[in-house]
Amino acid sequence: MHVEDLPTPALVVDLDVLRRNLAVMGSRWPGRALRTHVKAFKSTPLARAVAAAGHPSFCAATVREVAGLARAGLGEDLLLANETLHLHELGELVERGLARITVAVDSPETVDAARAGGIREVLVDVNVGLPRCGCRPEEAGSLADLARRRGLEVRGVMGYEGHVVGTEDRARRARGTERAMELLVAAHEAVGGEVVSGGGTGTWDLNTWVSELQAGSYLLMDTAYTRLGLPFEQASWVQGTVISVDRDGGAVADVGLKALGMDHGDPTIEGAVVLLCSDEHVTFLPDGDGTRWRVGDPVRVWPAHVDPTVAYHDRFHVSIEERVVDIWPVDLRGW
Amino acid sequence: MHVEDLPTPALVVDLDVLRRNLAVMGSRWPGRALRTHVKAFKSTPLARAVAAAGHPSFCAATVREVAGLARAGLGEDLLLANETLHLHELGELVERGLARITVAVDSPETVDAARAGGIREVLVDVNVGLPRCGCRPEEAGSLADLARRRGLEVRGVMGYEGHVVGTEDRARRARGTERAMELLVAAHEAVGGEVVSGGGTGTWDLNTWVSELQAGSYLLMDTAYTRLGLPFEQASWVQGTVISVDRDGGAVADVGLKALGMDHGDPTIEGAVVLLCSDEHVTFLPDGDGTRWRVGDPVRVWPAHVDPTVAYHDRFHVSIEERVVDIWPVDLRGW
Repeated sequence: MHVEDLPTPALVVDLDVLRRNLAVMGSRWPGRALRTHVKAFKSTPLARAVAAAGHPSFCAATVREVAGLARAGLGEDLLLANETLHLHELGELVERGLARITVAVDSPETVDAARAGGIREVLVDVNVGLPRCGCRPEEAGSLADLARRRGLEVRGVMGYEGHVVGTEDRARRARGTERAMELLVAAHEAVGGEVVSGGGTGTWDLNTWVSELQAGSYLLMDTAYTRLGLPFEQASWVQGTVISVDRDGGAVADVGLKALGMDHGDPTIEGAVVLLCSDEHVTFLPDGDGTRWRVGDPVRVWPAHVDPTVAYHDRFHVSIEERVVDIWPVDLRGW
Repeated sequence: MHVEDLPTPALVVDLDVLRRNLAVMGSRWPGRALRTHVKAFKSTPLARAVAAAGHPSFCAATVREVAGLARAGLGEDLLLANETLHLHELGELVERGLARITVAVDSPETVDAARAGGIREVLVDVNVGLPRCGCRPEEAGSLADLARRRGLEVRGVMGYEGHVVGTEDRARRARGTERAMELLVAAHEAVGGEVVSGGGTGTWDLNTWVSELQAGSYLLMDTAYTRLGLPFEQASWVQGTVISVDRDGGAVADVGLKALGMDHGDPTIEGAVVLLCSDEHVTFLPDGDGTRWRVGDPVRVWPAHVDPTVAYHDRFHVSIEERVVDIWPVDLRGW
């Protein structure tokens, strides 16, 4: 089936583009140095494609993501790069030998939760500037000591420079990354262990301090990341259909804000200016090149933020040269 | 189970508040005069509660919503208040006698699609100011004529004053509604039929022109609608857990933008200022009253826009006086 014959709205991924993105990222972060973040796509078949390309390490933001990867046979080295207090499900997977699972801790409470949940290995999560979880850098050493006293293996540290990954000016992004990583490296000296985990798609070639890169958006990309001029291409869009036009050339397609992550703003349509997104509609106007739409026309809607876009869909329609060749369920969404 | 013992994040609905909202709306729009919009909650058990209270008419924004209601035995009078070109699934439900289904049309193409899909009844969708679907008011009569020539029953018109339902100033909202409804009434004169369908939660007591009100948000409400000073209360929130705190009193809970509709902005937390939402986190600061959070504390996160919030969740946890008494699947999401 051609992608333009899909019932709409439909989430599509171009497999060739995805593979090119993976190859580019893999050239800088080979093998286990790349810890792909599953939150960006929430799909075990997509994760399997990444593992098959030689990158078997993953991180995730939810227990469901980690557990799903483990049950899918992708449990070689999984990191829950987030704090949670309920870890029994993951501890049981470790106990049964189904996965190696490391979790982030940033407080005595999360250390205790890891221990109580049957988790054996942790990373100390360090706040390097993003106001979201992570202990203070100067507390990392004592937290690691506490974890070790509780019988946990401390593999190292993680810290995410999420406050700078989206900075459009490359020099400013580089300086921000350096400042953040100075904090992480100092914390690592106090904590010990082999792992320094951090970074993201936006700092993939700027972050020279981490031992493994936590990046997920590089695979599918979105219009927000595309503005940074990275060598990754947008591989995923929402296929829609024009359902209404007016005589001024404006048009409405059936891809609304329930099919798109809206926190980074409106989506993009080639040849158009997006005027309005509502629940199941996007209204757009010609951008001046004379394009006119007709009812029934196919339209590609490019999300501003891919992660929350994918989370609204239950499957990827996998395409090669415009033909749908596979369906990948988005099987790790929800909680 | 107490709502604060739920695994988080968890979508909760307070059944008493929901029932009060329904009673208030039903006092102004009794019986079939209220056509509840299912897009706001996407759940057949919730729709069943509305029908049981004497309001068996529903409208919806997607084929899946309409088909799901029909298959759940809620097909007495369903309106697809949206344009679509693929209606065979709904036509088959009509053919099998499972539902009365009316669809909106705004163009010759959508008239033809209704006919081709086996739909028998339509409303002419009229653009009354919102830049989203609907024919021009002056074209409504000829479109109705076309539909009748195609053998379709034209039940009347619909038009949604969505561009004014959120206007905070009540007098301005009233004037905008009047202007929009003048267009709809004129179109109705040209179209004929018994139905004049329109309105929404924000204009529930201002729109005196429609014969039936299309409202959905009144049941669950959200912080955006609450600013209008309507007599409906927020019945739904996302229950979260504090997973990280810092020594300044800031806190992070496990309710992020994948658990919230973000198009109307950040959610609200009582006693706090929300600083940042990311995929699985909300970071918030004390608002000055001295509240301090601890890791493990329960927190209620009130969405700014309920419709796209619900669409991220697979179930409502139904509560009465803080106890979970039922689970309602969000079974009509997706496409």
